[in-house]
Amino acid sequence: MNTHKKRPKAVDNSGFSDNSSAEGWRLINKDGSTNLKKTGIPFYRRISIYHTLLKMKRGKFLVAVFLFYTVMNLFFACLYMLIGIDRLSGSTRGSTFFDDFSQAFFFSSQTLTTVGYGHIAPVGLIANSLASIESFLGIMTFALVTGMFYARFSRPKAYIRFSDNVLVAPFKEGRALMFRMATDKNNHLTDVEAQVTVAVHILEEGKRSTKFYQLPLEINRINSLAISWTCVHHLNEDSPLSGFGAQDFKNGAVELMVTVKAFDDHFSNTVQQRTSYAAEELVYGARFSMMYERAGSGRYTQVMLDKLNAYEVHTFSADPSA
Amino acid sequence: MNTHKKRPKAVDNSGFSDNSSAEGWRLINKDGSTNLKKTGIPFYRRISIYHTLLKMKRGKFLVAVFLFYTVMNLFFACLYMLIGIDRLSGSTRGSTFFDDFSQAFFFSSQTLTTVGYGHIAPVGLIANSLASIESFLGIMTFALVTGMFYARFSRPKAYIRFSDNVLVAPFKEGRALMFRMATDKNNHLTDVEAQVTVAVHILEEGKRSTKFYQLPLEINRINSLAISWTCVHHLNEDSPLSGFGAQDFKNGAVELMVTVKAFDDHFSNTVQQRTSYAAEELVYGARFSMMYERAGSGRYTQVMLDKLNAYEVHTFSADPSA
Amino acid sequence: MNTHKKRPKAVDNSGFSDNSSAEGWRLINKDGSTNLKKTGIPFYRRISIYHTLLKMKRGKFLVAVFLFYTVMNLFFACLYMLIGIDRLSGSTRGSTFFDDFSQAFFFSSQTLTTVGYGHIAPVGLIANSLASIESFLGIMTFALVTGMFYARFSRPKAYIRFSDNVLVAPFKEGRALMFRMATDKNNHLTDVEAQVTVAVHILEEGKRSTKFYQLPLEINRINSLAISWTCVHHLNEDSPLSGFGAQDFKNGAVELMVTVKAFDDHFSNTVQQRTSYAAEELVYGARFSMMYERAGSGRYTQVMLDKLNAYEVHTFSADPSA
Amino acid sequence: MNTHKKRPKAVDNSGFSDNSSAEGWRLINKDGSTNLKKTGIPFYRRISIYHTLLKMKRGKFLVAVFLFYTVMNLFFACLYMLIGIDRLSGSTRGSTFFDDFSQAFFFSSQTLTTVGYGHIAPVGLIANSLASIESFLGIMTFALVTGMFYARFSRPKAYIRFSDNVLVAPFKEGRALMFRMATDKNNHLTDVEAQVTVAVHILEEGKRSTKFYQLPLEINRINSLAISWTCVHHLNEDSPLSGFGAQDFKNGAVELMVTVKAFDDHFSNTVQQRTSYAAEELVYGARFSMMYERAGSGRYTQVMLDKLNAYEVHTFSADPSA
Repeated sequence: MNTHKKRPKAVDNSGFSDNSSAEGWRLINKDGSTNLKKTGIPFYRRISIYHTLLKMKRGKFLVAVFLFYTVMNLFFACLYMLIGIDRLSGSTRGSTFFDDFSQAFFFSSQTLTTVGYGHIAPVGLIANSLASIESFLGIMTFALVTGMFYARFSRPKAYIRFSDNVLVAPFKEGRALMFRMATDKNNHLTDVEAQVTVAVHILEEGKRSTKFYQLPLEINRINSLAISWTCVHHLNEDSPLSGFGAQDFKNGAVELMVTVKAFDDHFSNTVQQRTSYAAEELVYGARFSMMYERAGSGRYTQVMLDKLNAYEVHTFSADPSA
Repeated sequence: MNTHKKRPKAVDNSGFSDNSSAEGWRLINKDGSTNLKKTGIPFYRRISIYHTLLKMKRGKFLVAVFLFYTVMNLFFACLYMLIGIDRLSGSTRGSTFFDDFSQAFFFSSQTLTTVGYGHIAPVGLIANSLASIESFLGIMTFALVTGMFYARFSRPKAYIRFSDNVLVAPFKEGRALMFRMATDKNNHLTDVEAQVTVAVHILEEGKRSTKFYQLPLEINRINSLAISWTCVHHLNEDSPLSGFGAQDFKNGAVELMVTVKAFDDHFSNTVQQRTSYAAEELVYGARFSMMYERAGSGRYTQVMLDKLNAYEVHTFSADPSA
Repeated sequence: MNTHKKRPKAVDNSGFSDNSSAEGWRLINKDGSTNLKKTGIPFYRRISIYHTLLKMKRGKFLVAVFLFYTVMNLFFACLYMLIGIDRLSGSTRGSTFFDDFSQAFFFSSQTLTTVGYGHIAPVGLIANSLASIESFLGIMTFALVTGMFYARFSRPKAYIRFSDNVLVAPFKEGRALMFRMATDKNNHLTDVEAQVTVAVHILEEGKRSTKFYQLPLEINRINSLAISWTCVHHLNEDSPLSGFGAQDFKNGAVELMVTVKAFDDHFSNTVQQRTSYAAEELVYGARFSMMYERAGSGRYTQVMLDKLNAYEVHTFSADPSA
Repeated sequence: MNTHKKRPKAVDNSGFSDNSSAEGWRLINKDGSTNLKKTGIPFYRRISIYHTLLKMKRGKFLVAVFLFYTVMNLFFACLYMLIGIDRLSGSTRGSTFFDDFSQAFFFSSQTLTTVGYGHIAPVGLIANSLASIESFLGIMTFALVTGMFYARFSRPKAYIRFSDNVLVAPFKEGRALMFRMATDKNNHLTDVEAQVTVAVHILEEGKRSTKFYQLPLEINRINSLAISWTCVHHLNEDSPLSGFGAQDFKNGAVELMVTVKAFDDHFSNTVQQRTSYAAEELVYGARFSMMYERAGSGRYTQVMLDKLNAYEVHTFSADPSA
């Protein structure tokens, strides 16, 4: 592990402590979530239902909602059975319990969704009260469910795609860390800012600890993310990673934590996306290939998103520490 | 009460005046609300219904909404009774007034929720007009009610848990005020900023008054609130609380007012949380215990939220003023 | 009109030009709207329906919505009449045209609100198609109407009440312009910023023109608007209004344009409010009275909103220009 | 093409690369969208449905929604036909397939919109289950559709109208680039900021490349966009376009990319609008005419939006390079 003199001051505003991840496990997952587990308080107080429903995979969400709808109908069907199926006029008394129960179930579903055909209708005070409460609950719960459904659909997202790798590429007279990003949807981001924090494991006086440094970028804000943006951190003398060779990055189990913030005028909102690059995603000695070209007889520019991570190997003539 | 020479300039942008709380009552309640009462204008002009419905406890809100639904049905039931229950076809004329009224009531609820079974249906101009207006009102009021219900559910919140106590802990060569915070849900805050104002009662020329100072923090902004954040105010010579001993904090009835602002990318919004520490919540001579550890064979970090307020007593060797 | 040498540089980023309002008409109305009329393009392109519906008085909005609902029902009733009332089964053929039309009207309203009792139901292809389209349109238009209704209700507002008058009050050794504000609802604003621009009519080389100056405030940002906030502009040598006597303010037809921006954590949004003070709302020689007191045996602070504009007359010993 | 010595440093934070548009095709379209095409990943991953539905023209959107509603009804009608039209009680068996199918179709539409008249109602387990699922799907999909419909209607927009041309006008002793803007609706923007980037084609060492420069404005932020705002870039020595004559602008295929950001307190949101001026939209030697006047006997100011682009030709006495 490299130990040079003029190391920049470590910051401790990363939100992480000197919590060693030397074993190679990352602090930030590839999708930008933190690699943490919270304990010490009951489960139900540790989760925000809103966040959980928003993060859930689409299929899982739809299944959960449909199950919830079914369970609510089952619950009310039971109540209607309890007060007697004959309290639902129009329901033809079936020969089996199942026939009656399904009548109650479908009446419940017609009430919950407020479709209310009316070929089955409640009779008497209790059945009517129950139906009245159910239709009220139906409106209230569907408000949450459809609200969440729409919120998931319209949730401000950056739709940024990052290159899979971070490269150590030739830059000016020396080297630089480079990764790039592009939006992969028909959205347009403006006022795009990137912030890169590096976690590096240092062996100081025989003790391993994790230090965090803010990595200055050549440009840390662009007006508009039109084609793509290559973030460049010059590995010069001021860099906390100055003089790191290929092996130093591995040994230091260096992890780059990236946060990008931008404004999307269709969401009219600030959007944010996070990612991280672990040591194994660093390619030492490479440069990104061009990912756009003039097309349509020069009338427009074509951005080739499949080339976002395309790079050419570049062999450095000498070791940086040499 | 301590009166030293080089006191920093008091600020008066706290929003409070030199309004003495020397009797020990706080300016800011523990939940971040202000300890104020507004008078001089009629009640209905002093409240925002939106704010009231948003702040209301969940149970109370649901009861209020259900009561509102019931009252609206009662109101329309009365109207239907007035025009005559025979104007609702399909309603089987009951033997008692209560039978008729409940028919009208349930017809109203079926109209308000737009469930409209139709086994009871309006007959004639007046009943039809009333039903037409009721279904319209039902859609409009349910829009407000379900909107509020969803707004309460999806309201951007920081979900920050603060330590119960603020400590005077050893720091560098001297002492520092420290409190800490963590998010207790599955949310992730970025760009977290804290602002601390202290209210302290000063005896100047025999007159007690309250002075406000902005307390500078060692770090007042972190990129990401992943594990926890300990806010540190160094009690050095530049501090308005410089030289305060345990008794001085009590005598001065010192109150720390804390505002934390952050960005939550699931809400895609700025969230804010406030709290305050009164003199009795200050522990003189203590340091926070570690609240996280590597777990799962080092694969992730475990944050123990039950230890948020855990501290060890620390006895200072000498008095600060000594 | 006062013409002194060292006048600060006028700004022209007020959004107004040197558009003279010397006749005494204000640039900004008391409610913060601009005193402008836009012409030159057709009316329908000059209004945003969204802004119009949001600004409309509540009563007017509700009447407009109800009228829209009625007109839509009338329109569809006509269509149902055209295809023949016998296409609506269950409708008892009335003796008069009005009877038939009202049947069609109420069927329409039952379809539009999706209440659909079913005692009247469409028969045949055309009636069914029409009903199918109407229920679809009902859902779509009610989405807009209820959306607007809720948007009006939940629209982020600052709920700031400004003092009616701006005072020229004694301040330090000299004088200052002062106005104050408080929130009159159960809301809590943080990070409150005020910006004051003054429009003053200058007689330069015989030509009257309007100059705009940004007025620096003693404090232009407070952490929290808890009790009240008195904005203070010191009329010292650096002020563009330096040396103005009571008559100068009248002659100059001075107008103060005030914009306040803050964060409300219940709306989780930035709120903004504007107002203006014309020359006739300026009181020369007065100071604001105290508007709060400790109450409830010192347990809380009472803010007396009726005293927001309360001031005591103060006679200055000498003219500023003297 | 002009090549002078003291050219300001080009920026490369425009989001575009040195991607030559020398052929005359613009980088930014007049409506502010980018002139780009994304390729390399499948179509469905390249579009955000939300962005697509938001950008779509109004008529197209309504047709798409209506088509979707029809297709869904057709789909469910097929399913009902499959399980047998006799499973829908009340449906009068028609003589033709088309009669039966239309019954199924209209029952589907009554279920999807939850209007549920009930003159046709499902019988048996399968028909009931299908109807139960359809009403559930109806609520969910209409949540998305009406949500999108309202989002399109209430989408924060700046409603800024830019002058068609950018002028090279006389300014101070020299010349300046000028364009102006006004809001054309009854909205009011505050804290308005403009950012102008120029793309210019440079012939360096025989190679054509595109350079980007940030153009400093005389005023780049106004408090309030009340009447109109003329953005002025002084073509002085510090300007990257310093010394450009009429022909140089054409040769350089100069393109001005404009982004305006502001706060609208009715949307309570930041709004943004972009546009661009290509070389052919530049008028060399002209000045904007006045577009407002005092009206209504001086009681208000009239803004004539039809004169937004009105200018008078101005002949410069000498060439700038002379």
